[in-house]
Amino acid sequence: MTMHIWTASPRANEASAPTWFDTILIVSTQFLVEARAGAARAGRLTTPHGEVETPVFMPVGTLASVKGLPQEVLEELGVEILLANTYHLYLRPGVEQVRKLGGLHGFMSWPRSILTDSGGFQVFSLNDLRKVSQEGVTFRSHLDGSSHFFSPESAMEAQIGLGADIIMAFDECTEYPAEPERVRASMELTLRWAERSKNYFEEHKNEVPCNKVSDRTQALFGIVQGGMDLALRKESAERTIEIGFPGYAIGGLSVGEPRHVTREIVEATVQHLPAERPRYLMGVGTPEEIVEYANLGIDMMDCVLPTRAARHGLLFTSEGRISIKQAQYAGDESPLDPNCVCPICRRYSRAYLRHLYASNEVLAQVLNTIHNLSFYLDTMRAVRHSISLGRGARFLSEVWSRAKL
Amino acid sequence: MTMHIWTASPRANEASAPTWFDTILIVSTQFLVEARAGAARAGRLTTPHGEVETPVFMPVGTLASVKGLPQEVLEELGVEILLANTYHLYLRPGVEQVRKLGGLHGFMSWPRSILTDSGGFQVFSLNDLRKVSQEGVTFRSHLDGSSHFFSPESAMEAQIGLGADIIMAFDECTEYPAEPERVRASMELTLRWAERSKNYFEEHKNEVPCNKVSDRTQALFGIVQGGMDLALRKESAERTIEIGFPGYAIGGLSVGEPRHVTREIVEATVQHLPAERPRYLMGVGTPEEIVEYANLGIDMMDCVLPTRAARHGLLFTSEGRISIKQAQYAGDESPLDPNCVCPICRRYSRAYLRHLYASNEVLAQVLNTIHNLSFYLDTMRAVRHSISLGRGARFLSEVWSRAKL
Repeated sequence: MTMHIWTASPRANEASAPTWFDTILIVSTQFLVEARAGAARAGRLTTPHGEVETPVFMPVGTLASVKGLPQEVLEELGVEILLANTYHLYLRPGVEQVRKLGGLHGFMSWPRSILTDSGGFQVFSLNDLRKVSQEGVTFRSHLDGSSHFFSPESAMEAQIGLGADIIMAFDECTEYPAEPERVRASMELTLRWAERSKNYFEEHKNEVPCNKVSDRTQALFGIVQGGMDLALRKESAERTIEIGFPGYAIGGLSVGEPRHVTREIVEATVQHLPAERPRYLMGVGTPEEIVEYANLGIDMMDCVLPTRAARHGLLFTSEGRISIKQAQYAGDESPLDPNCVCPICRRYSRAYLRHLYASNEVLAQVLNTIHNLSFYLDTMRAVRHSISLGRGARFLSEVWSRAKL
Repeated sequence: MTMHIWTASPRANEASAPTWFDTILIVSTQFLVEARAGAARAGRLTTPHGEVETPVFMPVGTLASVKGLPQEVLEELGVEILLANTYHLYLRPGVEQVRKLGGLHGFMSWPRSILTDSGGFQVFSLNDLRKVSQEGVTFRSHLDGSSHFFSPESAMEAQIGLGADIIMAFDECTEYPAEPERVRASMELTLRWAERSKNYFEEHKNEVPCNKVSDRTQALFGIVQGGMDLALRKESAERTIEIGFPGYAIGGLSVGEPRHVTREIVEATVQHLPAERPRYLMGVGTPEEIVEYANLGIDMMDCVLPTRAARHGLLFTSEGRISIKQAQYAGDESPLDPNCVCPICRRYSRAYLRHLYASNEVLAQVLNTIHNLSFYLDTMRAVRHSISLGRGARFLSEVWSRAKL
């Protein structure tokens, strides 16, 4: 097994000439590719708050909480990194409040890694009345209608205040469908904003509030846009890499396009991203899809699907999806998923889970969320294991067929 | 320390002449008084599913779930006995469903003790259109308006099917205020129903569905009524004891009367209950009150207050009640209760709990409920400890002043 270590200190043109540093010099995240199988890779991402084995699925904790689950449970499930939403936290409880309380880690009492998005996606998805200019975006709060403004600089300021381990450049999430000129203009805007994001971050990254637990500091990742146009995706990737980031995300997908288009864009874009940097595909997907994207060489993913579906009684199992509200489960003594070793499947019956859901008991959401998250995390562990063994798509496809939901 | 062991096999006139049996002969619960301090006692109640240290506070799991808490958490908090509501479970998911799934223990995967109420209280409190006859009560479901009938026999049948360790005689909860003739008539009805409850139970107690985990079987407790009339309470106690039960509850309190009246009735009624049987005061109270009632010689209590208050952001602490929604806690880094060692106070700040509540996060309910239940359980452990040390009201009043909320 060949092991590659690159530091994640952002530099221009880094992809073409990775440099080896002593660990003393490492200033943000560190990423090691430990095994490969085809395009897929198993790696280890080190942040100021610990190590993250990749490929990784990041549960979404929008308001500094994965809905219904105490942080103790997330730790027990083996969650190594959480995602939190800058837009939501900016509105409530506010960045300054979180900053004063030690950043997100102190605020929510989570000792492991955190990633925040830039707020860009929510500004676009939750605001019909937004106004975009070169300077930034004016938008209204979905809570009280109050007016707010995000620029690359203010989005960085917010994310530095929140103090996550990995923060994201402020981007415009191009709508789908869009005319070619519109997609290009949007991509150009995102590239200018990426540069401004990086400039602001480099000047202010020493202001992170969380207690120092290591010599590392926050890392700022860039985001590739370009709509559903392969050429623009390539150009966006190349020019974002030119700006230079310790990790790269693929944004602007899962916005309504057919799934085969998503796959096509991911597969093509990954090839233009540096092999030695973590690759983060934002906002995907089903268990089937996260296996497929890991197989294409994606290292990090996040999605509200497992947690949101759990709240609606939709459960992922090795035997397919189960809508637990159905009457057929009322007398079913078997575990939710006989192949699952999560705390829920080890202890409770389908009949009990169905009763809780049908009776609107809050415990339904708690138990369902624990199971769905376990299923995603176990799926990713299986994928990672198969890559670590050097097994490629053949073994992955077996995992996949297990997760074919 | 003198230890008294009486078996709990129900017999007539048992109070006047307790008999010692070999443990081999024990058929239902066993109750040991291990220490006394004034009227208060510390004891040990053994059920088919384990031991319960008394005085005990029983969390309410209305629909076979303590709202928001996985059974694992209840175990970790040291809960030894839960209460579940027959009325609610009868309507949803239905007694037959629970019976087929192994009774409540199997259904909800709870290996420790369970007590069910008779359904009487809910029939009276949730049904304005109920019709009471000598035979029983016709009532409408609060869920869909469908018509149902509970008699002493059918309430016993339901509770045998649910399979709790301790079940309650079917009683009429007398309304407050009520005319003297009405209170007497209601008490007489409860006494006739107690006899019918016992008769049905004795004929059918071998039908309990749960897997046998010991040689013990269910125990049926009687309920003392009599409104706010001390003479009727005495008469109800004496005639209920004459029927003979392994434990006695005081019902018909916390129905709107002033708290000093509740206390007066409890103190007077306790003196007419056999010292060697567990005494259960139904539906109380605040932390202050549960200490006081334990001090009066009550062994078992239940109340929705800690769990319901938690859902409304009302938290009990050693420094008084806290309404966590208040803005003053938004930046408060201190734990909810600096004297509490519960998992919530050890990990989270008031600021985070306030944020979760203000943001309508489900985790607010989960964490608040864990704290409030811990506070109640810890209060009872402190009370029990002081009794075990032979300390009476003096030490108890210290505990009480700690819990003066």
